[in-house]
Amino acid sequence: MKQEQLILQKRPNGMPTKETFQFREIEIPEPKDEEILLKTLYVSVDPYMRGRMSDGPSYVEPFQVGEPLTGGVVAQVIKSNHDHFKKGDIVRGNLPFQEYQVTNTTQISKVETGGLSPRTALSVLGMPGLTAYFGMMHIGEPKEGETVVVSGAAGAVGQIAGQLAKKVGARVIGIVGSKEKAAYITETLGYDVAVEYKKGNLAGQLKEACPNGIDVYYENVGGNISDAVWPLLNTFARVPVCGAISSYNLKEGEADIGLRMQPFLIKARAKMQGFIVGDFADHFHEAYAFLSEAVANGDLKFEETIKEGFHSIPEAFLGLFSGENIGKQLVKVVDGE
Amino acid sequence: MKQEQLILQKRPNGMPTKETFQFREIEIPEPKDEEILLKTLYVSVDPYMRGRMSDGPSYVEPFQVGEPLTGGVVAQVIKSNHDHFKKGDIVRGNLPFQEYQVTNTTQISKVETGGLSPRTALSVLGMPGLTAYFGMMHIGEPKEGETVVVSGAAGAVGQIAGQLAKKVGARVIGIVGSKEKAAYITETLGYDVAVEYKKGNLAGQLKEACPNGIDVYYENVGGNISDAVWPLLNTFARVPVCGAISSYNLKEGEADIGLRMQPFLIKARAKMQGFIVGDFADHFHEAYAFLSEAVANGDLKFEETIKEGFHSIPEAFLGLFSGENIGKQLVKVVDGE
Repeated sequence: MKQEQLILQKRPNGMPTKETFQFREIEIPEPKDEEILLKTLYVSVDPYMRGRMSDGPSYVEPFQVGEPLTGGVVAQVIKSNHDHFKKGDIVRGNLPFQEYQVTNTTQISKVETGGLSPRTALSVLGMPGLTAYFGMMHIGEPKEGETVVVSGAAGAVGQIAGQLAKKVGARVIGIVGSKEKAAYITETLGYDVAVEYKKGNLAGQLKEACPNGIDVYYENVGGNISDAVWPLLNTFARVPVCGAISSYNLKEGEADIGLRMQPFLIKARAKMQGFIVGDFADHFHEAYAFLSEAVANGDLKFEETIKEGFHSIPEAFLGLFSGENIGKQLVKVVDGE
Repeated sequence: MKQEQLILQKRPNGMPTKETFQFREIEIPEPKDEEILLKTLYVSVDPYMRGRMSDGPSYVEPFQVGEPLTGGVVAQVIKSNHDHFKKGDIVRGNLPFQEYQVTNTTQISKVETGGLSPRTALSVLGMPGLTAYFGMMHIGEPKEGETVVVSGAAGAVGQIAGQLAKKVGARVIGIVGSKEKAAYITETLGYDVAVEYKKGNLAGQLKEACPNGIDVYYENVGGNISDAVWPLLNTFARVPVCGAISSYNLKEGEADIGLRMQPFLIKARAKMQGFIVGDFADHFHEAYAFLSEAVANGDLKFEETIKEGFHSIPEAFLGLFSGENIGKQLVKVVDGE
């Protein structure tokens, strides 16, 4: 029996292209003792994966050329030789992108998403939800009446981050790239104001939207968009830095040049902090409990943009950099059984 | 009886010039009930004063054109109509720069520097010492064996900051602008390595000096020097931002352009935080006690560069931006009695 896996064919220099990726046909392996065979249902594509395609130091190992990409996967157990997993179980893990795989079960955990689709384990009840939670609640720490700005506000993380700030009583402004996203964050998510950066004069729009300055800026994008935020930072502002997608596709030798932060951080006596979900491993239980309850109560909305078929992974990934997705971008490989 | 005061004659656009300043002759005032008459002994010139010369929002009010500059002053009581102060007492305060002045005593406090010159109340036992202490100990939080880099390492704040990191067992590298300063920080202060940025290839020099990366960067200068630091930040690095002198003399409409911080903060999951001494008012007692004891024990060295005469204040101030001073730059107006 044959299946396909998605290989890093060539490291990209700048924006990834079709040549970055390659599909390879391999055998479907057989599980040995204590192993299980998984069928991939959903694959998560995330901006941070771009960093792993380059061969530089980072907080995760780079992908290897000729080896499969790995990332967030939700899969179903097809055969089990392990006591704790039975056929039909839904699991998630950080796994190679291939249609079927054998695992020794140390890299996976069972998905418990109540009545929700198991794909939420890659979305609001997975890494993006946790990223929003820890960045906003543990670093941003918004207070009632404060002004919070979220960039990438209609994306996988931004859609959650802004709602968390609303729940503590902050005034929340989202920066987005389209009218459709603006409508989504204000009408569905309850953001107070949407600012569309493509309309131009972002600095002026932001100033108007934030007459009392900015207390928390949830940094999702970097680049020129964020440069317009810095002059508005209030005293003791907090800037959790979740991502800087605008810088991920710089070519070799290019640098991310823009406003230096030091003068703004001094003026505002502000704090800026990079983080990843793993830094808060001691608080996973707290975060899952909070997010699950909020979703179950209908207090936390979320959207997913889903492409169909294993072959659509490269396109789904590349779409992240042109902002095609509303909410979490996922690829549905096949239905569960 | 006449005296002089130092006036902001014209707001500078870029680097201050002679036209920025003006000396004005005024009467020596007479103290009323509950007031005292002070004679200025020492005046502190500090880089942050440049910000107050411009008419923009900051954490301190701008100086007013035609009004005296104000800053750190050590003075002696000449006449007292106040029970708590007697003739001969030495006080410090944030006061107008003039040779004599009357105060109602709410803006001043008595100087207690043990056997040290009262001018240390503007130096190691004053704002620069506190700035070093809070930035390094409360934000940088170096640990034994970590690598700490201090820019402006031979300056008023840097000379203290690096020694504090040495006291907790860190390896400390100082960035300086001259061979003389390099000798001072390594031979007198006990820094492990001095890196002279004017020698060129700062990135290479730093990499060699920090084979294990950088855990704490005490940010004193900003600009190109700091841009060379960012790629070396270790996981969970801390960057207290005390000053960015390189950006203080930008002309109107110029921006401080260089490396954006976001990619570095994410890669290292690092924290960068601006602060001023006043943010730590609850800890002043702790800091004074620590610094006083360390100085008394001979555990904390410091240097002062002293210009003589009230008329030398502008020159002393301007010298800060060309790095003329070793240690704290002060102006001695006159001897105490």
